[in-house]
Amino acid sequence: MNINDIGEFGLVDRLAEKIQVRNASTIKGVGDDAAVIAAGGGCSLLTTDMLLEGIHFDLTYVPLKHLGYKAAMVNFSDVYAMNGFPRQLVVSLGISKRFDVEHIDELYEGMMLACERHEVDLVGGDTSTSLTGLTIGVSVLGECEPDRVVYRSGARPTDLICITGSLGAAYMGLLLLEREKKVFEANPNADPQLAGYEHLIEKYLKPEANREAILSLRQAGITPTSMIDISDGLASDVLQICRRSGVGAHIYLDKIPIARQCMDMAEEMNFDAVTAALNGGEDYELLFTIPLSLHDRVKDLGSIAVVGHVVEQGRGALLIPPNGSPVRLRAQGFR
Amino acid sequence: MNINDIGEFGLVDRLAEKIQVRNASTIKGVGDDAAVIAAGGGCSLLTTDMLLEGIHFDLTYVPLKHLGYKAAMVNFSDVYAMNGFPRQLVVSLGISKRFDVEHIDELYEGMMLACERHEVDLVGGDTSTSLTGLTIGVSVLGECEPDRVVYRSGARPTDLICITGSLGAAYMGLLLLEREKKVFEANPNADPQLAGYEHLIEKYLKPEANREAILSLRQAGITPTSMIDISDGLASDVLQICRRSGVGAHIYLDKIPIARQCMDMAEEMNFDAVTAALNGGEDYELLFTIPLSLHDRVKDLGSIAVVGHVVEQGRGALLIPPNGSPVRLRAQGFR
Repeated sequence: MNINDIGEFGLVDRLAEKIQVRNASTIKGVGDDAAVIAAGGGCSLLTTDMLLEGIHFDLTYVPLKHLGYKAAMVNFSDVYAMNGFPRQLVVSLGISKRFDVEHIDELYEGMMLACERHEVDLVGGDTSTSLTGLTIGVSVLGECEPDRVVYRSGARPTDLICITGSLGAAYMGLLLLEREKKVFEANPNADPQLAGYEHLIEKYLKPEANREAILSLRQAGITPTSMIDISDGLASDVLQICRRSGVGAHIYLDKIPIARQCMDMAEEMNFDAVTAALNGGEDYELLFTIPLSLHDRVKDLGSIAVVGHVVEQGRGALLIPPNGSPVRLRAQGFR
Repeated sequence: MNINDIGEFGLVDRLAEKIQVRNASTIKGVGDDAAVIAAGGGCSLLTTDMLLEGIHFDLTYVPLKHLGYKAAMVNFSDVYAMNGFPRQLVVSLGISKRFDVEHIDELYEGMMLACERHEVDLVGGDTSTSLTGLTIGVSVLGECEPDRVVYRSGARPTDLICITGSLGAAYMGLLLLEREKKVFEANPNADPQLAGYEHLIEKYLKPEANREAILSLRQAGITPTSMIDISDGLASDVLQICRRSGVGAHIYLDKIPIARQCMDMAEEMNFDAVTAALNGGEDYELLFTIPLSLHDRVKDLGSIAVVGHVVEQGRGALLIPPNGSPVRLRAQGFR
């Protein structure tokens, strides 16, 4: 059977079916942003991600320092998506012969900067040669009070669906960098045209996991009913919440927050900015649900957009345009 | 600067120098078999390892099920080497197009069998495509009582140096499989000549992390003063203990436990079995030190060999043959 036929989610389901949990300390295994493990009176959160050259990054325009930063950040984002805080990080590197010690230093520099900003300790490193390219495996251990852990499965009908920051910028940044790469390949003397689009490039190269959002939700006394980080695009991640919570969702197209630079770039490239937000991925913002009664409290926080609400499962997962008919949300497949 | 000039250990040192620890929960970071993290009243142990196709394994003779088993086991071994028990495992896979769903099933089957035997829960999986080959990143979370964690740094002069099981078999198994691969490549009709050497092949393809040794040490009330798992070969791993503990070591060549099949194979291949034990690696046995006063207690356990003793740093790390002059222990470099 071809892997593309069942996709990454299909593979995870296949695996999840076979798993037996043996240890009482395992509170939540496969199927959320991080595993949840009882540790003393608290909870540990464990997550892992692997970045492969040629698949997840292209070193012709991704500086190694940024790459190290991002490799750490995508894992921190998974921990925040459980309403916890990352604390320790371990990293494995597979390095081909074309890299030297200074390259590895740059990569670690970015990773350590990410750790510094998010108060995480780098506690283990493992390095080996690889036949081709660079592979980065990062795992992060986080922490959360047991009564504050937020799962994908807690969304209930009438809950509001909220998003931090704005979407689509990372994907437009990637398209822009790919365009300039082609220009450079055709004419190595051409200057890259990136001015005015710094926000897009930064969102792609150096995403910031949204610790601030978690801190301000806590300060406001808000514990979301469900949460996920937006790494695969809004559509895919809303569908994950729907599936794990056994609910539907109505998302209002005109409520989806899209940055101005993302709009401008989309127009310039003749691309649909909403598609970037729905399916682009890599935004590393947070998608969460809250009871309707907390609407005013979340509105006061600023930089959080209410984009729709949770409905009964039978009412579907729909994208509702201001004019015209609702369309079913669809996830992109295995990338 | 070329990575080979400083080696893997040099890279780890370079990294360790730059690290600042920020969280009070981080008890031990880089520099041991696993990181040690305070969690409630207990300790969590965190370790990670990456296996890359063409570097760590050759799929022409490594079955995927065995590979999954081994990928889990090498991490369990790191946790046992801290005197703890593995509890949860997360895995990241990078998979090229030549693999299908059934291949991934086999890999997971081996991993889950390892988890079953060592009472570990598989709590997270992440899968993505890769341009070439198979990459497996595994991280394991373990547990230990705070007063029982054993570090590489606790060896003291007069301590006895002990080894579980026997050494060299995994490396001889690898040599044998490589030999038969060449025979097969020259003549695909030739039958592989593996009979009588099942132990060597099993030690290489399907190593078993030594949980039994940890259990029996505990039952006997013995807490080692230092410990490490023998993954890089006895020489390299003794030197790690010496370095972290600030001591020397005298190892008696004729005390090094070497399996009969390993001796036989070495003779057949005109290879030195002691070299396989000293530098072959991948044995995943445990090397530990105990106070001299516990000699009788450890002798009673069986299947543990006393191979030497810890000395003052100035007296060096030496291999002492029954006849002839002592030689300095040397580690193999970056593999």
